[in-house]
Amino acid sequence: MPSIAPVPGLRAVVPAGGAGTRLWPLSRAGAPKFLLDLTGSGRTLLQGTVDRLLPLTGPGGVVVVTGVRHEAAVRAQLPELGAGDVLTEPSPRDSMAAIGLAAAVLVEREGDIVIGSFAADHVIDTGPGFADAVRQGVVAAREGHVVTVGIAASGPSTAFGYVRMGPSLGLADAPGARHVLGFTEKPDEQTAAAYLATGEYRWNAGMFLVRAQVLLDHLARLQPELHAGLREIAAAWDTGRRAQVLDAIWPGLLAISVDHAIAEPVAAAGGVAVVPGDFDWDDIGDFAALRDLLPGGDAHVLGDLAKVLAIAADGALVVPGGGRTVVVLGVPDAVVVDTPDALLVTTREHAQAVKAAVDALRAAGRTELL
Amino acid sequence: MPSIAPVPGLRAVVPAGGAGTRLWPLSRAGAPKFLLDLTGSGRTLLQGTVDRLLPLTGPGGVVVVTGVRHEAAVRAQLPELGAGDVLTEPSPRDSMAAIGLAAAVLVEREGDIVIGSFAADHVIDTGPGFADAVRQGVVAAREGHVVTVGIAASGPSTAFGYVRMGPSLGLADAPGARHVLGFTEKPDEQTAAAYLATGEYRWNAGMFLVRAQVLLDHLARLQPELHAGLREIAAAWDTGRRAQVLDAIWPGLLAISVDHAIAEPVAAAGGVAVVPGDFDWDDIGDFAALRDLLPGGDAHVLGDLAKVLAIAADGALVVPGGGRTVVVLGVPDAVVVDTPDALLVTTREHAQAVKAAVDALRAAGRTELL
Repeated sequence: MPSIAPVPGLRAVVPAGGAGTRLWPLSRAGAPKFLLDLTGSGRTLLQGTVDRLLPLTGPGGVVVVTGVRHEAAVRAQLPELGAGDVLTEPSPRDSMAAIGLAAAVLVEREGDIVIGSFAADHVIDTGPGFADAVRQGVVAAREGHVVTVGIAASGPSTAFGYVRMGPSLGLADAPGARHVLGFTEKPDEQTAAAYLATGEYRWNAGMFLVRAQVLLDHLARLQPELHAGLREIAAAWDTGRRAQVLDAIWPGLLAISVDHAIAEPVAAAGGVAVVPGDFDWDDIGDFAALRDLLPGGDAHVLGDLAKVLAIAADGALVVPGGGRTVVVLGVPDAVVVDTPDALLVTTREHAQAVKAAVDALRAAGRTELL
Repeated sequence: MPSIAPVPGLRAVVPAGGAGTRLWPLSRAGAPKFLLDLTGSGRTLLQGTVDRLLPLTGPGGVVVVTGVRHEAAVRAQLPELGAGDVLTEPSPRDSMAAIGLAAAVLVEREGDIVIGSFAADHVIDTGPGFADAVRQGVVAAREGHVVTVGIAASGPSTAFGYVRMGPSLGLADAPGARHVLGFTEKPDEQTAAAYLATGEYRWNAGMFLVRAQVLLDHLARLQPELHAGLREIAAAWDTGRRAQVLDAIWPGLLAISVDHAIAEPVAAAGGVAVVPGDFDWDDIGDFAALRDLLPGGDAHVLGDLAKVLAIAADGALVVPGGGRTVVVLGVPDAVVVDTPDALLVTTREHAQAVKAAVDALRAAGRTELL
């Protein structure tokens, strides 16, 4: 990988939450997806995300926002982060509160920098495409836009949202940056294929770049109470009053996603741009996606290959995470996930339905397994 | 169950060998099928076999023949057997040596009794049919026949051998006893169906009754060296010379099945009879058979039902033997067998192919799992 020059004035925000329910029993409430090495690379998804971002921000330029339950694990996985670079939420309040908190704290600390928000549990290839998207995104963000990254779709996926691109912004240093005409949540396959045929659509991966002050200004206009609460918390964050102010304000904050709070209304008003993300990307939303990420021989294995024997099981995903030998015989596209206390046996076709199994365990009171 | 009167002069021989390879990883070389409770009854197959036989022979009337590797486990499972009622083979020499040894030892001890040979790893219902078959079999055996039990077939199974019945023996105390016209090994389904349509065929379950002296006389004629060796061993068995004689003779004994050594040639000469076995019987040859034995709700479970969650998995067999919770999602007829060191995932359709998986493990040097 070529060495990457930092982008001046860029800070990265990594919201690290979300259980990854469809990856149960690999992902658990206590050990969610972002804390796991799902690619066999030796680095967890969170570590991989920070590895990708630090060269672009320079040292000290990445802030992780996580829940109190995962703070210790996050800090342990990221010794390169300073004490102040992990922001801990007392309780989950969805992505707007997490990212808004980071933006407000960074404005207090550093003034009006550009922040990029990147999920902690996505996989991106190691080529130059990601850095190029970020560089163009920063240029467009400096112009006052909320800038999403539009991923070049590899097919008419029904698992992702889509962004519709409009005319170029005409920025010399961000030639790929374009206006956004709108967002669509997960479409059906026919609609997705029609989108891609126009050449105007890309996947919306939920990454965005924006001047911190622009984000806060949008928030002040669209969700004034949430904005006021976050600013008050941020003002106290690096003081002895943090706990007291958090206790008083955090529980009452509105839980809303960035998409609903900012991206959609601002896009409708013409304030969102998109830069091209020409790289391989996946959010590993389920075991079907995980399988496709892993090299396949007789089976796609995450873990110790020597623990797996697959016979007539083409396309199977096997995670031998319980220490035992796993034999899969005559079940093509099987998904077998073995852990010390729970075993899942299903097939690729049912990857999305894993959530239903987790719901059934919860309904049965088996919360210790979740 | 009504109390059962012993049959005078009957001794039962239970050869307890065979790994049950198609039931791996439940059945292992070190813990073979006959030592396992495969029905959830609380009794192992061996214990169930002896429970069924002791009322017919009376106390002290059952002899188990097993290998040195399993002697301790057999004795521990059968405290009701006397020290001399477990005959231990130094090494496997197939069923003729095992049963011939028992016959020769019993002749030394008790003279010319009738012996019945019954596998240690079959399942039979608890109704009166089994005792009735044995009673008729003893009557026919006293007349000098080798008497097999012909099981009433519940369908054209391709997993079992068939016996063709001829004319009645005309015995007043064994009205169902008939001559045997011949045996067929596992036929294809069409052939099996044609057999059953004639009304002349039954399943050959490998059980037989015969006067011990008649068996030894057949053996002396058909396999004289094997006969001589077994007689020499038997003469030394209850003396201080047992170990010395076993060391000298056992390793050189011919390994041959009772079917090949005795049943087939004697049948060809008209010396085999059959009595009707009108009871439910299964040899639990594979996981398909095991599944059919177990009650089914969402899945057929051998073990702790509370450890299993089956969704859209009709007909699945789940053995939660590793202590963990097992979730099966969307795999009808799945076979999931979890043990502390090995996990098998397959489907009912591949039940017979489990042997191939075991062969592959052996080829890979994973003998500690076998």
